[in-house]
Amino acid sequence: MASPTTSIIILAAGLGKRMFSSLPKVLIPVCGRPMLLHILDRVQEAQPQARIAVVVGHQKDKVIEAVQSQKYSMKISFIEQTEQKGTGHAVKCAMQSDWGKTAVDKKEHVLVLPGDLPLLTTELVRDMTEPLKRGSALKLLTAIVADPLGYGRVIRRGKKGPVLRIVEEKDASPLERLIQEVGLSIYTFGAQFLNVGVAALKNDNAQKEYYLTDLIGHAVAKKRAIETRTWDIPEDVRGVNNPYELAVAAKILNSRVIKRHALAGVRFVSINDARVDPTVKIGQDVTIYPGTILEGSTEIGAGSTIGMNVYLKNVRVGERSEIKAGSYGENSVVGSDVRVGPYAHLRPDSDIGNHSKIGNFVEIKKSKIGEHTSIAHLSYVGDAVVGSNVNIGCGFVTCNYDGAKKHQTVVEDNVFIGSDCQAVAPVTFKKGSYVASGSTITETVEEDALAIARSRQINKPGYAKKIRQK
Amino acid sequence: MASPTTSIIILAAGLGKRMFSSLPKVLIPVCGRPMLLHILDRVQEAQPQARIAVVVGHQKDKVIEAVQSQKYSMKISFIEQTEQKGTGHAVKCAMQSDWGKTAVDKKEHVLVLPGDLPLLTTELVRDMTEPLKRGSALKLLTAIVADPLGYGRVIRRGKKGPVLRIVEEKDASPLERLIQEVGLSIYTFGAQFLNVGVAALKNDNAQKEYYLTDLIGHAVAKKRAIETRTWDIPEDVRGVNNPYELAVAAKILNSRVIKRHALAGVRFVSINDARVDPTVKIGQDVTIYPGTILEGSTEIGAGSTIGMNVYLKNVRVGERSEIKAGSYGENSVVGSDVRVGPYAHLRPDSDIGNHSKIGNFVEIKKSKIGEHTSIAHLSYVGDAVVGSNVNIGCGFVTCNYDGAKKHQTVVEDNVFIGSDCQAVAPVTFKKGSYVASGSTITETVEEDALAIARSRQINKPGYAKKIRQK
Amino acid sequence: MASPTTSIIILAAGLGKRMFSSLPKVLIPVCGRPMLLHILDRVQEAQPQARIAVVVGHQKDKVIEAVQSQKYSMKISFIEQTEQKGTGHAVKCAMQSDWGKTAVDKKEHVLVLPGDLPLLTTELVRDMTEPLKRGSALKLLTAIVADPLGYGRVIRRGKKGPVLRIVEEKDASPLERLIQEVGLSIYTFGAQFLNVGVAALKNDNAQKEYYLTDLIGHAVAKKRAIETRTWDIPEDVRGVNNPYELAVAAKILNSRVIKRHALAGVRFVSINDARVDPTVKIGQDVTIYPGTILEGSTEIGAGSTIGMNVYLKNVRVGERSEIKAGSYGENSVVGSDVRVGPYAHLRPDSDIGNHSKIGNFVEIKKSKIGEHTSIAHLSYVGDAVVGSNVNIGCGFVTCNYDGAKKHQTVVEDNVFIGSDCQAVAPVTFKKGSYVASGSTITETVEEDALAIARSRQINKPGYAKKIRQK
Repeated sequence: MASPTTSIIILAAGLGKRMFSSLPKVLIPVCGRPMLLHILDRVQEAQPQARIAVVVGHQKDKVIEAVQSQKYSMKISFIEQTEQKGTGHAVKCAMQSDWGKTAVDKKEHVLVLPGDLPLLTTELVRDMTEPLKRGSALKLLTAIVADPLGYGRVIRRGKKGPVLRIVEEKDASPLERLIQEVGLSIYTFGAQFLNVGVAALKNDNAQKEYYLTDLIGHAVAKKRAIETRTWDIPEDVRGVNNPYELAVAAKILNSRVIKRHALAGVRFVSINDARVDPTVKIGQDVTIYPGTILEGSTEIGAGSTIGMNVYLKNVRVGERSEIKAGSYGENSVVGSDVRVGPYAHLRPDSDIGNHSKIGNFVEIKKSKIGEHTSIAHLSYVGDAVVGSNVNIGCGFVTCNYDGAKKHQTVVEDNVFIGSDCQAVAPVTFKKGSYVASGSTITETVEEDALAIARSRQINKPGYAKKIRQK
Repeated sequence: MASPTTSIIILAAGLGKRMFSSLPKVLIPVCGRPMLLHILDRVQEAQPQARIAVVVGHQKDKVIEAVQSQKYSMKISFIEQTEQKGTGHAVKCAMQSDWGKTAVDKKEHVLVLPGDLPLLTTELVRDMTEPLKRGSALKLLTAIVADPLGYGRVIRRGKKGPVLRIVEEKDASPLERLIQEVGLSIYTFGAQFLNVGVAALKNDNAQKEYYLTDLIGHAVAKKRAIETRTWDIPEDVRGVNNPYELAVAAKILNSRVIKRHALAGVRFVSINDARVDPTVKIGQDVTIYPGTILEGSTEIGAGSTIGMNVYLKNVRVGERSEIKAGSYGENSVVGSDVRVGPYAHLRPDSDIGNHSKIGNFVEIKKSKIGEHTSIAHLSYVGDAVVGSNVNIGCGFVTCNYDGAKKHQTVVEDNVFIGSDCQAVAPVTFKKGSYVASGSTITETVEEDALAIARSRQINKPGYAKKIRQK
Repeated sequence: MASPTTSIIILAAGLGKRMFSSLPKVLIPVCGRPMLLHILDRVQEAQPQARIAVVVGHQKDKVIEAVQSQKYSMKISFIEQTEQKGTGHAVKCAMQSDWGKTAVDKKEHVLVLPGDLPLLTTELVRDMTEPLKRGSALKLLTAIVADPLGYGRVIRRGKKGPVLRIVEEKDASPLERLIQEVGLSIYTFGAQFLNVGVAALKNDNAQKEYYLTDLIGHAVAKKRAIETRTWDIPEDVRGVNNPYELAVAAKILNSRVIKRHALAGVRFVSINDARVDPTVKIGQDVTIYPGTILEGSTEIGAGSTIGMNVYLKNVRVGERSEIKAGSYGENSVVGSDVRVGPYAHLRPDSDIGNHSKIGNFVEIKKSKIGEHTSIAHLSYVGDAVVGSNVNIGCGFVTCNYDGAKKHQTVVEDNVFIGSDCQAVAPVTFKKGSYVASGSTITETVEEDALAIARSRQINKPGYAKKIRQK
């Protein structure tokens, strides 16, 4: 299906002022991933051998860095557009570069894609990269929309005849405004035609910009054929021009990710009520409750259940584990057959071993927990190494910070720590030791020793009455 | 409205491979209830005296058990289909059983329902169980759909003439594919016609299966009349063939449940943002915030408020109580005028008395709490009996587990327990006793006694400076 | 655009029985604000100098109080309708009052609005308050709807001719029922025509009520012109007649609020998944995660991030602060560069200083916290004044309640409190003091002193083994 070489120009130089962001527009994330990378992902799927020219401008270093951080098989060049003088100018920069010269030399067909279409699909890229017919100057993507307001209207000779031009909203006559076929700013050009065309563009318009759209007029003037491709799914080519459209696009993209997982066997308790980044991996036979957010490189192993309102970012969960409601994890690892939550907090660098339990209102930070270990209630374990078959009671605290430095707590295998104990780090609980409830542990507890650090209970008969009478 | 006896065959033998579930397809839950039971619930409402034949196959014991666990007034027989050889074969099994013979003998009309239609409505069952007209072989349920892709098209003589046949997608001519009237796999047959028809079905098709649809051809061949009923609400007959469709069905079903409650007076702060199982009961003047999930046999008493993101499964809440944001409860009882949460955790077998308060980050497990008692902050109460008018401070812990066994804590009426106390169970706090903050209680606190078990405070002047200089 | 004086009657006397509420219908809140105030807000925007007559009846004192609590520039009169005898009767009460006499004397045009249209827009009010054409008796708002069921149909002479009358559903002929143009119970009348008209209304109908709709017949009988205005957005005039419609309206209203903020630069991670009261203010460059609810007078400063499932009611958050998942705050103040949560609970009268941190499972109540102070884990701070540069460890508790009264805790600047400490209030931690982990503090800790109140650790070698063997 792929032509020998596919050449694609992606327009990624714009500022996106209405986005109110410190990021350049094409780097603004949708579902956790910059818009531009969504586009490149789709292009990669459709045309893994494509030659890409990314036209950069605003904050170009950031844009280039973002693309280069990825592992694409496509050959990607970056073309600088120093001033933003319109789409035509951007393409001209590309065509007059070495990248463009190669395209002309090899008589390639050049697809031009705006950089702000995060909902672009692989199918669309495949379709628009099919070779032009012999003699065609270009292929134009159009859509029939219910409400064409704001779009350029496609003017044809007769109702279904060849395309004559695209008229912008503001230049359209009342009759032209009724036209429901609109141009989508996606074109495939013959390289030679494109090269000559962009060089000849004029900016004699209100904005003093060079418009790629004008090439349609060029083709008509030269009596070159214009192909059109009408796209049935307007959603695929939704642009993103402000934070509202961004949030709408995010919702649509999320629903696609959810659908993909659901068809592959993931059981969402209700459709489209969880949010799953496209980068997340989910195994077979996983159940996901509403309100949950899975981000980044998170992976959920087969047979696990993720309760409602769970937040996991870059967390790897093993098989048959249950992450209960409201648990919150970042950059951590959870083994298999583990129960977490509800309302457990795994701060970065937590590593929970197989068959262990981290219960409600427990915070783990930068700690490794062994297997078959239980930390079931209201505790804070930070900077600790906890062994296997350990039982830690309610209200345990690692006093890891002395006001200046953080210190480590070591709890070896088979230790039992009663409730409301504190470990004043650095401190070690050796194998099989036992700590009485209510103890503040400041020194090593030796193997199989009992440690106790609390006051004996004194009862004062009748005193409670006196207190009440005060 | 009901005919003397209504006979209904429900097809419940399938595996549902694309569901990726260990459950047989018809037992997969939608909003907490197996699909098959949703159907039987609707049939029960429409035709409480119906004679039902459930055709079972895959994991038939589980299916039979699920149905028999319910209290239906309908007379339900189970017919085994040992091999899955198509819908026609399934119905043949039913018709050739004693159940079918009775239908033939009594000249009943037989409604055939697929077992994977969790959104079926009472109205549809009522409609399709109205007696056939004299002379009709069958009545066929159809719908006019915008996108008929994948459905069997209804071929009529002329545009609105009698039905000739149903053509499956793959067998349809391009012209036939444009037809928007589709068959919905729901039919009512004269028992005699059905009996003869299924016996004569052939499996000379690609799948080597026997199709019930072929009976339409039989009727046409025999010049028997075919009635049609066009159903306006395509949603009602959505089939469920994969986890995506399952999650979509769950959302639709939930919105119906929400609407029913809202029209009866329940105030949802926003529509369709909570999830309420169809089995849940909600009283008058109840307010429910978004993100909340109510499951199983949960009941909410009049005048209560359920905050956002609450999860309650099999929890009975009394009147005028407030369950605040993020609280999580299972198999528990909450009295009237109780305040719970935010972020309280009621583990199974918690019973909270009237006018009591269970505050934030408090975990209750297998405990009975009296009336006018307060456990307001960061505590764990497990395996305890707590009386009335008790005040338990912050950070209280029942040390109920000694590494081997669980032990009970008893807190009698009018006890005051200061903050950060632990009860090393088994232990009893007798009536009116008072426990000083920071005490680990290991022995009985006698009536009206003050118990104290902590160290006296020692101040070391200037020492803090030294620590900071370290 | 505004006519010299605009007069508006708002019908706010009804009970709203189907709402199942103890509030009068027009005071039932939608997105936290009574329906009637939503209407008045829109009228205020469209016609800040309007003369308003609010017709009150059921619980009139509450309605009047609600309106008077607001600062509108409009001149608002309250007209009592002692018996609810229909819309015509309500308007008659207004027209026969001094308010109505002024309208007649000044030949004003009078807009009549039902009080249960929380989705009314400024544009609609502007449009309907434009002066009538010379000679017109009234202007009628209509809409073309797909499903006219339940609405009054607009009967015209011919298809597009002048309006003859409105026929209620129950009085409509089968042919009339097919009409898709419906009346919306919103009219603008010439005051003189209205005054005479309502005086002449009859109640010879099933409900024995006086209907404003009948004035259309009057106008036709008197050969007076009737203008119509067809409104394209049916949503704007959705009435609210039961809790279901209320919840639907709330969702629509919320989506409008979200859209307004998003277009102004607020980044919602997904569209329409947070709930923001119309009264809330949000600064530039703010990110809001799904599931969050912002209510009342909440304000979010520029550059702040609000995580998922946060609940803030009347909370002012400064700039560049982060409120993490599940945090819950009421009537509090959070400074700039503050980090809160996840799962922190700010109870009323909490005031968190700049650069401070309130961590997970921490409850703050009626306390002022200084700057650069950290209370990071599982603590309860109530009735306290905490200074700047204070570090409070995990499991700290202010024992502020002795069973009878609440007492204050004072923690001065630069104090370090180890983990699992309790402050038995009233008590003071003076500047620069240091408290060892596990201490129950009952007396003043002097400046730069170290306080310690815990038992020395005793290790019993081999005892753990014995315990296990028990």
